[in-house]
Amino acid sequence: MAEKSKKNDQKVLDSITPKSTDISKWYTDVVLRARMADYSPVKGCMIIRPYGYSIWEKIQSGLDVEFKRTGHVNAYFPLLIPESFLTKEAEHVEGFAPEVAWVTQGGKESLEERLAIRPTSEAIIGYMYAKWIESYRDLPILINQWANVVRWEKVTRPFLRTTEFLWQEGHTAHRTHEEAMEEVSRMLDVYKNFVESTLALPVVAGEKSQKEKFAGALKTYTIEALMPDGQALQSGTSHDLGQNFAKAFNIQFLDSDGERKLAWTTSWGMSTRLIGALIMLHGDDRGLRLPPKIAPIQAVVIPIVYKDAAPVLTKAHELNERLKNKGFRVHLDDRDTYKPGWKYSEYEMMGVPLRIEIGQKDIEKNQVCLVRRDTLEKIFVPDSELEVRIEQLLEEIQKNLFNQADEIRRSKTFKADNFSDFVSIIKEKAGMADLCWCGNLPCEEKFKAEVGATIRCFQEGEVFSKCVVCGAEAKHRIFVARAY
Amino acid sequence: MAEKSKKNDQKVLDSITPKSTDISKWYTDVVLRARMADYSPVKGCMIIRPYGYSIWEKIQSGLDVEFKRTGHVNAYFPLLIPESFLTKEAEHVEGFAPEVAWVTQGGKESLEERLAIRPTSEAIIGYMYAKWIESYRDLPILINQWANVVRWEKVTRPFLRTTEFLWQEGHTAHRTHEEAMEEVSRMLDVYKNFVESTLALPVVAGEKSQKEKFAGALKTYTIEALMPDGQALQSGTSHDLGQNFAKAFNIQFLDSDGERKLAWTTSWGMSTRLIGALIMLHGDDRGLRLPPKIAPIQAVVIPIVYKDAAPVLTKAHELNERLKNKGFRVHLDDRDTYKPGWKYSEYEMMGVPLRIEIGQKDIEKNQVCLVRRDTLEKIFVPDSELEVRIEQLLEEIQKNLFNQADEIRRSKTFKADNFSDFVSIIKEKAGMADLCWCGNLPCEEKFKAEVGATIRCFQEGEVFSKCVVCGAEAKHRIFVARAY
Repeated sequence: MAEKSKKNDQKVLDSITPKSTDISKWYTDVVLRARMADYSPVKGCMIIRPYGYSIWEKIQSGLDVEFKRTGHVNAYFPLLIPESFLTKEAEHVEGFAPEVAWVTQGGKESLEERLAIRPTSEAIIGYMYAKWIESYRDLPILINQWANVVRWEKVTRPFLRTTEFLWQEGHTAHRTHEEAMEEVSRMLDVYKNFVESTLALPVVAGEKSQKEKFAGALKTYTIEALMPDGQALQSGTSHDLGQNFAKAFNIQFLDSDGERKLAWTTSWGMSTRLIGALIMLHGDDRGLRLPPKIAPIQAVVIPIVYKDAAPVLTKAHELNERLKNKGFRVHLDDRDTYKPGWKYSEYEMMGVPLRIEIGQKDIEKNQVCLVRRDTLEKIFVPDSELEVRIEQLLEEIQKNLFNQADEIRRSKTFKADNFSDFVSIIKEKAGMADLCWCGNLPCEEKFKAEVGATIRCFQEGEVFSKCVVCGAEAKHRIFVARAY
Repeated sequence: MAEKSKKNDQKVLDSITPKSTDISKWYTDVVLRARMADYSPVKGCMIIRPYGYSIWEKIQSGLDVEFKRTGHVNAYFPLLIPESFLTKEAEHVEGFAPEVAWVTQGGKESLEERLAIRPTSEAIIGYMYAKWIESYRDLPILINQWANVVRWEKVTRPFLRTTEFLWQEGHTAHRTHEEAMEEVSRMLDVYKNFVESTLALPVVAGEKSQKEKFAGALKTYTIEALMPDGQALQSGTSHDLGQNFAKAFNIQFLDSDGERKLAWTTSWGMSTRLIGALIMLHGDDRGLRLPPKIAPIQAVVIPIVYKDAAPVLTKAHELNERLKNKGFRVHLDDRDTYKPGWKYSEYEMMGVPLRIEIGQKDIEKNQVCLVRRDTLEKIFVPDSELEVRIEQLLEEIQKNLFNQADEIRRSKTFKADNFSDFVSIIKEKAGMADLCWCGNLPCEEKFKAEVGATIRCFQEGEVFSKCVVCGAEAKHRIFVARAY
């Protein structure tokens, strides 16, 4: 049987491309094999399968607690937005019009005005805020929406870039710019803390360049994760919309000094893309490696039955119940239609952080065998210490995944003192460049023209050289990379 | 000040139409005044405002627990469905095509094939199930989806009938028809228990006629609530789809006997419409009356300050904390910009089940004044008994709202022995008719032609007369009413 399960194991491994061979192919293989998502017959749209969706549910509930803790409430705005609304903010429509899906018929009638399926909801929400806000007493308005959005993308990839995706979009209105800016930075912090502590995704955070900002914003702030292939992945953004949307939609309030003033608005969002980042960054040749805090199953119990099944199955059930009662997300796989080896591969593919093997010998020795998904290390622990050790191990795995990802980020970030350095970092080293820039658009455009890279965000760090492109005085120290 | 707050109180009451005068106008007034929803600039679409949405969140979490308890998992399928998919099941497309919103353009390109915004997801899910299911071991598939859907409606009303609405749709596939039928009835029970115990909405449950069933189903089962104006409100449906969709999408499985067989599928759904039922059935001239189990705020603490504010505010905060710690959803309104009387009206409008008034005199007497929203009864309770009494009162209010609604249902349901009885029940008595029917379509059509009523569902009860329309032998005892 050991022979057989090895064969099975090999079969599973054979079915996915090694990550180092072709990360792009590997990614798709894992997404499909782990049943995270599936392709749909609608171009660019995916099905989020139950296993993938249960991760989204955990992201949702984790973030929702944070949003509520910071004073936000949820609401729901329409999916369909009249074209005339979208065009009210000039930059906004320019940015989004090329990727809008348009509804032109309702039932049998042709519509007089096209309706956009929301690519984002600033327009419709701005319109309603103008209606709802009368005086400074109505401010701030702090609303979040969990919704689907559609952006007509040319090239798509499950989770990372899809025509339809799920997200949350926060939309707030404030009395002063200062207060709005505080909100923008508060939510960026919420995002950074969440992805780092829960998803084990280390990120750099900072302002976007004007070229890369959200269409219609004054300033956009972003968190960016770095993938093993050196490409950055924008994981969440928070926008200072200034008074742009307040002007476009006439969001005014009567201030305490008796004057009518324009409100200051913000918006911020994270999406199912985060699941793509999780897969891409943590996964290995055996499949997913899920951080324990977000894993739908934290530990799987697999009974190893040779002759007498009953005592082993009884023990496996007992372990399962004990761990469930302790609040662990544990799953017992006692199916007799699959061999243990096949199950090992299966739950490795699914990224379950811990495997608990229990056989007759373990029972006799009063021990349990644990296998870590992150290191594949086998650990025998006394039965009596099981709960404590599992708690410790889950914490260790969470930290280890973060550290490994952070090591990727650090080892793939290189300082560039000049343009040829920069080119070599992107092209040869497949990394992210840490460099200085004069702040002018022509130089920014060279990053893309030369190697297809873009400014990911500004850094806090000190400017350490002239602009790597033109040699003029540098204004910003920035991260530049190719991006998903 | 008592004078002033009375004036305020009157103002609020004046602003909404009495329920008995015009229930339809009253309904809209309450929806808007209680900030449950607002009209949007998109025809037939509403905004679900935070207060309304928080009720939806409670419905979602309550139902989700039940779905998971009964073995279901959540997933997400695309919003957009190619026209050719919708047309695969003949009855299905006939039923839904007239109310589909069509996407015909993506970005700047015209699409080769129109895409329907999902009016429901049987088609796309059926297609995927055919792909996923190989053998009987893959069955049953028990998936639920929380999503938005669009149906191009001519006449709309917030929550009750809107172009876009939020819902859940369960879609399952089974090995045998018997198992599928068990699922259909299990989920109808889940729905009935949930709306009765949590939303305090008494319902009748039963099979729909073939004319009224879901387009593409073998049989539809429904739960129907009866509104104070004698109109029924379909609150949830569960469909036995037979092998109709399995045929249309080729959902086959290899059975243990080595034969390839068609699966048996079901679907079932409830929507934001439930919130409309809540409002319509429980509300009164002062606004909403929310059942405690679903109320976002179960009790509001209002300090009554005359001269010395400090001790009253301190006490109010203490009560608030005490109740919060006990797990009640309590809210303290200590704003000094509004008078207590204004607040009373406001929270009555919002349907908060209990008001807790605390003033200097109450502190001196070591008591707290509670006011029930359902009866407007004032109850003084010793401070030390507060938590216990609140728990009791919330239970009583929950029961009382159910009983009042059930009394409406009973008092508005009348037996009809002949057609003129039936006409008078619908037209004069504004009620629901309990009658017997031969089972033939021409007779069914008379209910609508004559008084605009439809068969709501079949009853379990014994047939007690001939068909009220044609006088032939009756096959079914049924409920007939006008409907929302």
